[in-house]
Amino acid sequence: MKIITISREFGSGGRELGRCLASALGSPCFDKEIINEVASKGIDTSYVNYVSDVADIKYIYPLTIGRTFHSPFFYDDKAIRILTSQQNVIRNLAQQGDAVFIGRYADIILKDLNPINIFVYADKQSKLKRCLEHIREGETENSILKQMKKIDNIRKSNQKIFTDMVWGAKENYHLCINTSGMKIEEMVPFLVEFVNSFPSNQ
Amino acid sequence: MKIITISREFGSGGRELGRCLASALGSPCFDKEIINEVASKGIDTSYVNYVSDVADIKYIYPLTIGRTFHSPFFYDDKAIRILTSQQNVIRNLAQQGDAVFIGRYADIILKDLNPINIFVYADKQSKLKRCLEHIREGETENSILKQMKKIDNIRKSNQKIFTDMVWGAKENYHLCINTSGMKIEEMVPFLVEFVNSFPSNQ
Repeated sequence: MKIITISREFGSGGRELGRCLASALGSPCFDKEIINEVASKGIDTSYVNYVSDVADIKYIYPLTIGRTFHSPFFYDDKAIRILTSQQNVIRNLAQQGDAVFIGRYADIILKDLNPINIFVYADKQSKLKRCLEHIREGETENSILKQMKKIDNIRKSNQKIFTDMVWGAKENYHLCINTSGMKIEEMVPFLVEFVNSFPSNQ
Repeated sequence: MKIITISREFGSGGRELGRCLASALGSPCFDKEIINEVASKGIDTSYVNYVSDVADIKYIYPLTIGRTFHSPFFYDDKAIRILTSQQNVIRNLAQQGDAVFIGRYADIILKDLNPINIFVYADKQSKLKRCLEHIREGETENSILKQMKKIDNIRKSNQKIFTDMVWGAKENYHLCINTSGMKIEEMVPFLVEFVNSFPSNQ
């Protein structure tokens, strides 16, 4: 069994790379799907998205109770329930066989299964260019740059609550890929070879 | 033309990986060969090795004149001549076509040629294990660990003199590879694919 986790900087194309890799490997790719499964348990989808993807956990999940989802001293019951539920969903999905997980701290949550952990990053200009290709109404170059910084800071800060492994520090990943100036689809063949270089019970 | 540079932590297997990659690509690999070419210009080989590989440049090359090899205010004339000569040798070799350069700050020296820059690292236990496989008389586990730390610190500190690009910081490389627990030869096919994902004038 091979479990792959993709952590990524906002705008680096990590999500696209993960989806293409999963497709090339014939494995399922779990990203928004995880959230949807959690959300399907009767909680409003937009709030689930907020808690699991954007919210700075330290405001909903006090530092003093960090590193476990099971503390009785929670701050926001609904948020903790979503995070716990998401954690369980990720664990259950990983039990089913080969899979690619994008974000959601799956590298930390699935640590016991020895996943292959990949970090995707790029320089600011490349990330901005990639974001501008999918610009939404009301967004500006400036607002995207702010969002980019904010999201990455939140990812880093949230991970700190769960683990000593620093988000984005190369030591915590098997491979770190710089997508600056690269076409995502052209990076897939080498990533498939990379995954193949691991024994299958890894 | 494709120029590849390999920077690596001491004991990570980066040199072996670079040699295997060059062999798989059918490209020449430059490492000790560079030194030998410099050394052949009439300077004692062991001193050349010392200056270009082990010495902490800040003691032979004052910080105030950093970032150029051509300052007239040098500290140790012979050392500067070796570094200048080595820089020229690296530049000349890179002009001749595809090549893999191991260490020697080739990523910095050849920056204008847009080389593909790879950083190889591993956890302490894996590096120690790799070093113990080639243990020399008089070496102990402890002396190897000390040497490991010393050499990497010197590489980091020396690079700081030449450039703002921090040695080992993932932002300065196209790919960072963690060799912990991996067999070097099994990582070569994916690296070949990685190099193939770059256009040839890169």
